[in-house]
Amino acid sequence: MKKLLNDYHFPEDLKSMSERELELLTYEIRDFLIEKVSKTGGHLASNLGVVELSIALHKVFNSPKDKIIWDVGHQSYVHKILTGRAACFDGLRCLNGISGFPKRDESVHDMFDTGHSSTSISAAMGYATARDLSGDDYSVISVIGDGALTGGMAYEALNNAGASKSKMIVILNDNEMSISKNIGGMSHHLAKLRASQTYLDFKKQLKRALKGIPGVGEGLYNGFEHIRDSVKYAIVQGAIFEELGFKYFGPVDGHNIHDLLEVLSYTSLMEEPVLIHVITKKGKGYRNAETNPGKFHGISAFDPTTGNVLSSSDNLSYSTIFGNKMIQLAHDNPKVVAVSAAMIEATGLGKFAQKFPKRIFDAGIAEAHAVTFAAGLAANGYQPVVAIYSTFLQRAYDQIVIDVCMQNLPVVFTIDRAGNVGSDGETHHGIFDLSYLNHIPNLTILAPKDGKELAAMLEYALSLKSPCAIRYPKGEAFDYPSETGHPIDGTCESLFTGEDVEIFAVGKMVSIGLEASKKLKSRGIDSGLTNVRFIKPVDRNGIIASAKRTGCLITLEDNVLDGGFGRTVSAILQEEGFTDVKLLSLGWPDKFIEQGSTEELFELYGLDSESIAERVCDFLEGKA
Amino acid sequence: MKKLLNDYHFPEDLKSMSERELELLTYEIRDFLIEKVSKTGGHLASNLGVVELSIALHKVFNSPKDKIIWDVGHQSYVHKILTGRAACFDGLRCLNGISGFPKRDESVHDMFDTGHSSTSISAAMGYATARDLSGDDYSVISVIGDGALTGGMAYEALNNAGASKSKMIVILNDNEMSISKNIGGMSHHLAKLRASQTYLDFKKQLKRALKGIPGVGEGLYNGFEHIRDSVKYAIVQGAIFEELGFKYFGPVDGHNIHDLLEVLSYTSLMEEPVLIHVITKKGKGYRNAETNPGKFHGISAFDPTTGNVLSSSDNLSYSTIFGNKMIQLAHDNPKVVAVSAAMIEATGLGKFAQKFPKRIFDAGIAEAHAVTFAAGLAANGYQPVVAIYSTFLQRAYDQIVIDVCMQNLPVVFTIDRAGNVGSDGETHHGIFDLSYLNHIPNLTILAPKDGKELAAMLEYALSLKSPCAIRYPKGEAFDYPSETGHPIDGTCESLFTGEDVEIFAVGKMVSIGLEASKKLKSRGIDSGLTNVRFIKPVDRNGIIASAKRTGCLITLEDNVLDGGFGRTVSAILQEEGFTDVKLLSLGWPDKFIEQGSTEELFELYGLDSESIAERVCDFLEGKA
Repeated sequence: MKKLLNDYHFPEDLKSMSERELELLTYEIRDFLIEKVSKTGGHLASNLGVVELSIALHKVFNSPKDKIIWDVGHQSYVHKILTGRAACFDGLRCLNGISGFPKRDESVHDMFDTGHSSTSISAAMGYATARDLSGDDYSVISVIGDGALTGGMAYEALNNAGASKSKMIVILNDNEMSISKNIGGMSHHLAKLRASQTYLDFKKQLKRALKGIPGVGEGLYNGFEHIRDSVKYAIVQGAIFEELGFKYFGPVDGHNIHDLLEVLSYTSLMEEPVLIHVITKKGKGYRNAETNPGKFHGISAFDPTTGNVLSSSDNLSYSTIFGNKMIQLAHDNPKVVAVSAAMIEATGLGKFAQKFPKRIFDAGIAEAHAVTFAAGLAANGYQPVVAIYSTFLQRAYDQIVIDVCMQNLPVVFTIDRAGNVGSDGETHHGIFDLSYLNHIPNLTILAPKDGKELAAMLEYALSLKSPCAIRYPKGEAFDYPSETGHPIDGTCESLFTGEDVEIFAVGKMVSIGLEASKKLKSRGIDSGLTNVRFIKPVDRNGIIASAKRTGCLITLEDNVLDGGFGRTVSAILQEEGFTDVKLLSLGWPDKFIEQGSTEELFELYGLDSESIAERVCDFLEGKA
Repeated sequence: MKKLLNDYHFPEDLKSMSERELELLTYEIRDFLIEKVSKTGGHLASNLGVVELSIALHKVFNSPKDKIIWDVGHQSYVHKILTGRAACFDGLRCLNGISGFPKRDESVHDMFDTGHSSTSISAAMGYATARDLSGDDYSVISVIGDGALTGGMAYEALNNAGASKSKMIVILNDNEMSISKNIGGMSHHLAKLRASQTYLDFKKQLKRALKGIPGVGEGLYNGFEHIRDSVKYAIVQGAIFEELGFKYFGPVDGHNIHDLLEVLSYTSLMEEPVLIHVITKKGKGYRNAETNPGKFHGISAFDPTTGNVLSSSDNLSYSTIFGNKMIQLAHDNPKVVAVSAAMIEATGLGKFAQKFPKRIFDAGIAEAHAVTFAAGLAANGYQPVVAIYSTFLQRAYDQIVIDVCMQNLPVVFTIDRAGNVGSDGETHHGIFDLSYLNHIPNLTILAPKDGKELAAMLEYALSLKSPCAIRYPKGEAFDYPSETGHPIDGTCESLFTGEDVEIFAVGKMVSIGLEASKKLKSRGIDSGLTNVRFIKPVDRNGIIASAKRTGCLITLEDNVLDGGFGRTVSAILQEEGFTDVKLLSLGWPDKFIEQGSTEELFELYGLDSESIAERVCDFLEGKA
């Protein structure tokens, strides 16, 4: 079993393997992927789709001399297997294990750290330009999905690279979907291309092209350029890419190793920008994933036979609570609409989309456009709710500032996956949002302590008629153990008071603060707990009152400290002249936070309840 | 003189005007624009280019029922004249005067506040979608330049809108340049379209199309759709737009009112996404501007006869100093290259481009791509310097975080127009950069006190081999009156010490702080002045030492307070337990700052030297 995977050294030994062996290898790799990812969880479907493509790339090209850049990078597992990292897969996405994305620190074969969509063509153009400046000669290849091609950056790069005439290969990995079904004119264009020449192999394509033209010589590749040019508009082949300056090849069957080797070998010799349109099937070779590629896009540990996720809780996630509340609000208010950036299901809007198909808009992986589109809706009388993950909303920072907040338009941002997201690591933690939003005028920023409060805040946000952001974490919603019932009214919510110290906790940190408070009690420290609720505008009076009462404040936030809530409190104390009040602000330090389980990471950085209790004790004793 | 402009009411009276009168009106408007802008300064060339287009739009469509959205918006002057604001042009771009960009607060005819590029199609799609949801029927028109079309957002929106099939008109105002010459595959595509049918009028186009097809009926518009479809690929007409789902019309002569009226009237009846490709000449009708459209893109007050700018100083601007230093550094180090986002001249890189044409890269109005392209260059051994205005770099926030800083790549960002930029107003002030950069791990942030220091900092930044941002203001470089000569070494620079209070000033605020210090002296207060230099990592020891010495710190920054330098100092004092040190942080308040001269704005917000001196006095007296 796994004879080839075990006996050969990759990528070196690929060079001497026959096509038959390569095909056997695809079976071994698929088995390996299913086995490993079923234990660790991870991105499965996209990797099953690129087994042949990854093998063909490493067979034809010489990594790391030739540079292969994986867009988003969640499809780089096969590449990792083929570059000597198969043995590391038990630690995939775990603390101190290998990443689920390419990492330059991890291997010389990983050229660019990706994680966010649509960057690979820009990065590849940078690599190619540097090569040209140095007078070197090697290939630079970007592998990008059709979903990532809805991102504007990819177009900016195609536009720029096509005109530069620099030698590079863009492989368009077209599986007719990214995470969910793609939308947009570009996907229609690709559909047309697929329909025009479904699964013809490369030689057949050439022959067909040659046949139509009389008087062409015998050499298969001779005169090929000319023929392609003369027929390309007749068959509308890759018109967008050709117009932007790329030579278009395809569509090629991405599960036919022979065809892939041929097209890669041929195009590797070309000295200009080339786009190869490869058709793949997400989840290929694993029936559960082929049938439900969305579920197996990113999945937790599962039973490989049934495909069922192993540990699934009955508790609702924040995303689900958000989606359910949206249905109610849209029912009550015909002006409420939803906007998503290719994440309808993941953000909890799946049911809403079924219920109100005309009131949900998927912008594609195009956060900037999504936000300004929402601003247009709002300027024309609607109340859009834009649901985007914290880390991806970074893409729309300028549009939030200028198009929404400067115009003071009633757009609500529901920011899912805020804070520590665990195993997706550096590129996916949502630990910057308070900092990139806090300084934007006109914006209200909220964070709920639990699921019920998220629903209440959404209702409040829509009542504001001005820009509002609600940030909440990944996963199961907390349920605060007692009924608090304070209306959302611009003030923070005192959950209980204490004699010695007051903890101001933002969002998810309320649940952790509650535990920390219990642990403090057992150490003889009487701490109060306040749910911050309003990060902006902050409840100045609430903070002042607490400062006066206890003389000692602790702030807890699932965000970096710089630009966060603790800094606001510090400024208030300074401005109010509370020179005798002590303040300890806890949050993420000034570094990129690695992967691990959310619990491990909180612990590692002293943000679990035990560490917090300890740090507060030390602080009170004057040690910190 | 200006008979039509004076006697008619716009836009109402346009409806009854003859084509002959409309043509006369174009002369009056051009005279008016030259006369007014020569006094106030502003965007001239782009407005001269859209006189006929603006007239035709307001003749055919009924604003504000029909919605016209101007991309970037610097070309909205004619629109403002035609919507009753001619009398306000003496106050153009002045404090309390009309804006140089569309403003919803200013007129019901301004649908969306623009200022940053490439947003209009997204906003228009939002407007059109809201209209469809409400069951209304009117036109939504976006007017976008060919330069703005290099921005990825525009593509995201075309892609999304083309597939939506929602009724909207995109007018591509193609003047073959934006601010400087356009680059990219798209501009080649447009050039080909221009060459294919130069300046045919609309009827001629139709006739030509009809002639080629036998058996077509007599009605001019009958069968038109069919004919266009059948011939479109043969003539490669607007292939990109057609593939994305738009009906393409053009190219149309943008200075021929008759043709414009015809194509707008016809397409106004269409119930799907339409793109009209209009060819205009930037600076049209004013020889000085036609010859040098770049100079007249945005210009200060000038002599209308000669075209010479009235007040021009002999002192070098920060941009020029940056450009000159780049030449020297590139000469010394072959790995140094420059990246611009369609702003080579404006950022001071014009001479560099002449000297090192192979080492400068213009990404187009595509900041996100520019930054990731630079990251690719850096990952492959080069040292790119990315020169982008503060407000436009907002577009690349995510790419700075993930592609540059997370990978700790040696990219230097030179951030021009940081802080108060004066008359361009809300959308152009660079007052957020410290806040959107301060919390990014691995990034060094510098601000020079004067021109010499900018040059030294650029050299320092390149020596770091990690991400570094240098922010500096618009305009003439300050020259600190005495030689200071402290090397750039991670510490702040004490310029002089004082007994009573220490002023920590960031960048431009050093010059203002110097004056404030003199004014404090005359009020009997002995203040020290420190040039902060390193906003991040901050010189903690320098701050602590000053705090100990004077017990009273003032921070000055040309940035909003939230997330800025003052907040860092506040946190340090808190962390160090300096409970008896007083701190006053001065910067921009939490609001969008209007237009005005830079001096007026500093005064209005208490950031000129006189106000600062007063505020410090009040603070010391315990009043603030």
